[in-house]
Amino acid sequence: MSVPAPACVLVVGTGLVGTSAALALRRAGVRVHLADVDPAAVALAADLGAGSLAPPDDPDVVLLAVPPSAVPDAAAAALDAYPGAAVSDVASVKGAVARAVAARTPAARRFVGGHPLAGRERGGAASARADLFEGRPWVLCPEPGTDPTALAVVTALVTACGAQPVVSMDPDRHDLAVALVSHTPQVLASLLAARLVDAPPDLLALSGQGLRDTTRIAASDPGLWSDILATNADALLPVLDALAGDLDRVRAALASSDGSAQASLAAAVAAGNAGHARIPGKHGSLPAPYTVVPVVLDDSPGQLGRLFDAVGRAGVNVEDVRMEHAPGRPMGLVELAVRPGSADTLVAALSGDGFRVHPPEQRPSGG
Amino acid sequence: MSVPAPACVLVVGTGLVGTSAALALRRAGVRVHLADVDPAAVALAADLGAGSLAPPDDPDVVLLAVPPSAVPDAAAAALDAYPGAAVSDVASVKGAVARAVAARTPAARRFVGGHPLAGRERGGAASARADLFEGRPWVLCPEPGTDPTALAVVTALVTACGAQPVVSMDPDRHDLAVALVSHTPQVLASLLAARLVDAPPDLLALSGQGLRDTTRIAASDPGLWSDILATNADALLPVLDALAGDLDRVRAALASSDGSAQASLAAAVAAGNAGHARIPGKHGSLPAPYTVVPVVLDDSPGQLGRLFDAVGRAGVNVEDVRMEHAPGRPMGLVELAVRPGSADTLVAALSGDGFRVHPPEQRPSGG
Repeated sequence: MSVPAPACVLVVGTGLVGTSAALALRRAGVRVHLADVDPAAVALAADLGAGSLAPPDDPDVVLLAVPPSAVPDAAAAALDAYPGAAVSDVASVKGAVARAVAARTPAARRFVGGHPLAGRERGGAASARADLFEGRPWVLCPEPGTDPTALAVVTALVTACGAQPVVSMDPDRHDLAVALVSHTPQVLASLLAARLVDAPPDLLALSGQGLRDTTRIAASDPGLWSDILATNADALLPVLDALAGDLDRVRAALASSDGSAQASLAAAVAAGNAGHARIPGKHGSLPAPYTVVPVVLDDSPGQLGRLFDAVGRAGVNVEDVRMEHAPGRPMGLVELAVRPGSADTLVAALSGDGFRVHPPEQRPSGG
Repeated sequence: MSVPAPACVLVVGTGLVGTSAALALRRAGVRVHLADVDPAAVALAADLGAGSLAPPDDPDVVLLAVPPSAVPDAAAAALDAYPGAAVSDVASVKGAVARAVAARTPAARRFVGGHPLAGRERGGAASARADLFEGRPWVLCPEPGTDPTALAVVTALVTACGAQPVVSMDPDRHDLAVALVSHTPQVLASLLAARLVDAPPDLLALSGQGLRDTTRIAASDPGLWSDILATNADALLPVLDALAGDLDRVRAALASSDGSAQASLAAAVAAGNAGHARIPGKHGSLPAPYTVVPVVLDDSPGQLGRLFDAVGRAGVNVEDVRMEHAPGRPMGLVELAVRPGSADTLVAALSGDGFRVHPPEQRPSGG
């Protein structure tokens, strides 16, 4: 059953995911209304063009973008307030949440649990982007008693956001999956980064990109993530138990002085190679590739202005910009991401203006 | 003591690091000769323009880009073969290597242990790039008896590669540092990725960017890394022991059914936030807190130029810039990170110029 995008959606919770969904829906022509317990958060989301602050009369869908433990109450309230609406959520734990909603109200047949597999380590409306869900899986977990009309309109919402609906995944199987591919990486990144709290600065000075990558998600919100981890404890604990056993074996190999130690360590790294190779890659899961044009600048106030002035005169639209300050060096590296077709124009223009432009590099976006 | 770049360098080992150093030295006008036990590897490096296959007559420096356990023999051979040359290495473990070289030959005074903090998860000459070391720290560990001329010419080589020499770090302290910031992340990334080996495809289908980032370095070479980990076991083991304890506490919190579990999990994630914020960002120092000034722009080419022109006129130094700009979002959000004392000036100037400035936000840098 395929239906058009909903005409009107109420997004409750204007953090990263809620605001991104609102922006994506606006882009698809949907009327979007916004609500959040934090007036400053919802005001920023509205100013970013995510939707209206006025309460809706009759939304087709209420999308709850609130932490997992807040979903059951919010769902019961939305099902009660809008008897014609389907209600969905974005919580990354589905089994326990679905059971709690079902226990609360018979209107739960209009509730369709959902989880977009998309995010960033930085929360808040400020980090929101309309293409956050582009090509990403968005799991929906209807129950046997779910209203088919509700499922259809929520599926249409997911499609309107640019995501790939993964319908009919068993909620508990979903929770096993995210325990492995999302919650375990979060725990390891947090524990690794926490080891740095008391490290002397001269040791930290040797940090490189490997540490930055492995700990990027350690910047995630403690309130939200403790909620997620605790809610998914049943699925997460066996994975962490197995990891603890693996870690014990590596420690034993390091502690042993016999010749088998290195073979055992090599086997552990090789198993990591094999697991890494199984992570689904570029099969349509990432947004369009960009070409990154690196430009080296002196680290002084006028430089960025001069650069962006030159970019503007070149008539090239910059899709993303990242500035890296190399440790110990008074130079900044600015990486300008542009559509592949625009890279040559930009390189020529900037080089002509005397900028130190390095060879462009193809890179998938989404990171 | 500052000397010009060496005129002639022999690079032994044409993997990623050796070939990248050779390319960087060639770019700096240095005559480079290449050697490797693997004829195919050295032929590829030569074909890539990294240097000559002919043996050098009288190199100023022999740079050993071989695994840690191979350095002592290679160093003794090079010190013997080229009595006028300084010899250095790039192994990521320094204490044990330096002791092994010193025990082998009195010529060890011409040996200067080194370690460039740069790399990629893909090895081999094919992945080499001349700018691999650009702005990166390159640690040198001279001993009290090290020949000052040897130290000077190796330092000049490091500078010629574009790296920042970090001279006079104690070898054992270096090994503590890399155990924490490099070898521990490698072990965790490998173990995490290894958990995916037997995972069903429908679970892996939910993988996202967080998993990709945390496991990127799991693609590293098992032979090289088992060598590194085993050689640095003394420094690495205590870090892994502490991590195992931290992991036990998270597992205990997840297994407990009382209300304290979530507080304990939140504390673990918050400790990760704190550690992550300590990873050095700009200029190798610990990141000072910044104030982030969010500005909403129309999504058109001239806007960034106009903004940075206004920033330049305000005389404010922008420490970092991040742009959230995706096709489809009606507005772009530019976040300007400045010193807290400059935020008010910037907000006033930009607001006066008609920009839509949102409330500034304190944020630690480094991410």
